[in-house]
Amino acid sequence: MLIGALEAGGTKFKCAVAISSGEIMKSVVIKTTTIEETMQKVVNFFLPYHIEDLGVGCFGPISLDKKSKFYGQILDTPKEKWKYYDIYNYLKDKLNCNVYINTDVVTSAYGEYYFGFNSLYKNILYFTVGTGIGVGVIYNGNVLQGNHHTEMGHITINREKNDDYLSTCEFHDNCLEGLASGNSLDNRYNLTYEQLENREDILRQEAFYLAQGIYAYVLAFAPDKVIIGGGVSHQKKLIPFIREEFKKINNGYFHYPLLDDINNFIVEPKLKDDSGLYGAIALAVKKL
Amino acid sequence: MLIGALEAGGTKFKCAVAISSGEIMKSVVIKTTTIEETMQKVVNFFLPYHIEDLGVGCFGPISLDKKSKFYGQILDTPKEKWKYYDIYNYLKDKLNCNVYINTDVVTSAYGEYYFGFNSLYKNILYFTVGTGIGVGVIYNGNVLQGNHHTEMGHITINREKNDDYLSTCEFHDNCLEGLASGNSLDNRYNLTYEQLENREDILRQEAFYLAQGIYAYVLAFAPDKVIIGGGVSHQKKLIPFIREEFKKINNGYFHYPLLDDINNFIVEPKLKDDSGLYGAIALAVKKL
Repeated sequence: MLIGALEAGGTKFKCAVAISSGEIMKSVVIKTTTIEETMQKVVNFFLPYHIEDLGVGCFGPISLDKKSKFYGQILDTPKEKWKYYDIYNYLKDKLNCNVYINTDVVTSAYGEYYFGFNSLYKNILYFTVGTGIGVGVIYNGNVLQGNHHTEMGHITINREKNDDYLSTCEFHDNCLEGLASGNSLDNRYNLTYEQLENREDILRQEAFYLAQGIYAYVLAFAPDKVIIGGGVSHQKKLIPFIREEFKKINNGYFHYPLLDDINNFIVEPKLKDDSGLYGAIALAVKKL
Repeated sequence: MLIGALEAGGTKFKCAVAISSGEIMKSVVIKTTTIEETMQKVVNFFLPYHIEDLGVGCFGPISLDKKSKFYGQILDTPKEKWKYYDIYNYLKDKLNCNVYINTDVVTSAYGEYYFGFNSLYKNILYFTVGTGIGVGVIYNGNVLQGNHHTEMGHITINREKNDDYLSTCEFHDNCLEGLASGNSLDNRYNLTYEQLENREDILRQEAFYLAQGIYAYVLAFAPDKVIIGGGVSHQKKLIPFIREEFKKINNGYFHYPLLDDINNFIVEPKLKDDSGLYGAIALAVKKL
């Protein structure tokens, strides 16, 4: 029996059918356009495989309260057309299958936990640094989920002394997303990630900001691994800088064996850009 | 059958025997002195009751890894005499009973969850603002515990513009504990909590710092309640100020019904100064 996996993103939808070991048998990438067009293509892809279980990692926020009638519905997203779209029930009905849905970042975190690191590390923080910044938490081998989705990208951080740039977050003058997201970098410097390679000053500042967010949540979860994914992490120099800034902030205070081995503690995703797609497979395999 | 409860603090040890409803039948407060003297008094208190289960909330850090041979042992504490003291096995052996141990702040959080709010709210953040600053998390009705104790009091925060005070944390120039703990307040102003009543400037700054830490962890856990305990919270004006600063920082961004009702969201402990003692009872009742 094939398992379905969908990573629903703002620019593209990735669909795959896979076996439970995670081996992908067939996949397709669909450009995100209107709801009707995009979702029709998604359904057309999956229909022939008669899947029973579909995992979905979806851009958010989405309702994750199983007792709510809005469960699995996209909520107040900046993607106007998709606001309040009930992706969960649409897929359930059209494909006549079980749907296991979570946010994109939590799904990616779970993909890294389950397939990326073979469930070896039970406590994982997954940061995605793309257009926005999000954090997914795997806690004792399970997805961390309170009553409400979380918003760790909006933590208050300390600016560098001479940084008086206007935050791109319309709510917060000094939040991580407003100062360090891909969106913020684009607005400030208008450089592609590749072009940042020779701008160590920018990368150092980016690393300093990200390290503060990482540090705050490492203090809270004492994770086994911190994974940095998303577009910004494609810049190869960034993660080494983040490690340095993290060490500076920590200054030897918090330590345990996995944290102390910093090069294996703050790492890039094992699954590269497919953490989310594999995460969706994992959600379906584990029926989460 | 009576249940034993011990709140082991740096200045005093509170001991109680109670029934499972939380009704305390007998209690005693012992001044913390040497290990030998203090622990002998603790044992003398409990021995006559032949308890089977003892809950312990202990100043830390303590080892909470059940697979470790150091489990329940006090680790690298500034209280030199108590460093590496195996309080867990001592109590287990001398009282011949089951011992359920956790850190003081987590035990307090659990006390508020279980007895304070009658398990009505499954996700609780408990901040203790005393000599130091600690945070205990109840997540889906359970104690949050990864592989290692957490250290949320050391989150990096933004200083107020003209605050160039030297942090009391020897590791961090800008951490919450270093700038906003009771220790830091004492060092800066040499005023008792009562005397702070007419120093709204100090209380506002304190609230601004605490609100940043609270905000960061509200974003992570989306809790049902945030409880502010510890000595500093005795200053009655503080919590209203914290609510104001929290609202300013959030600026309407993160919202859900429990958070939006801010006066019932950021609150003082229901159990006043006995969160830890009741928490210890609860640990033993639930055999955690």
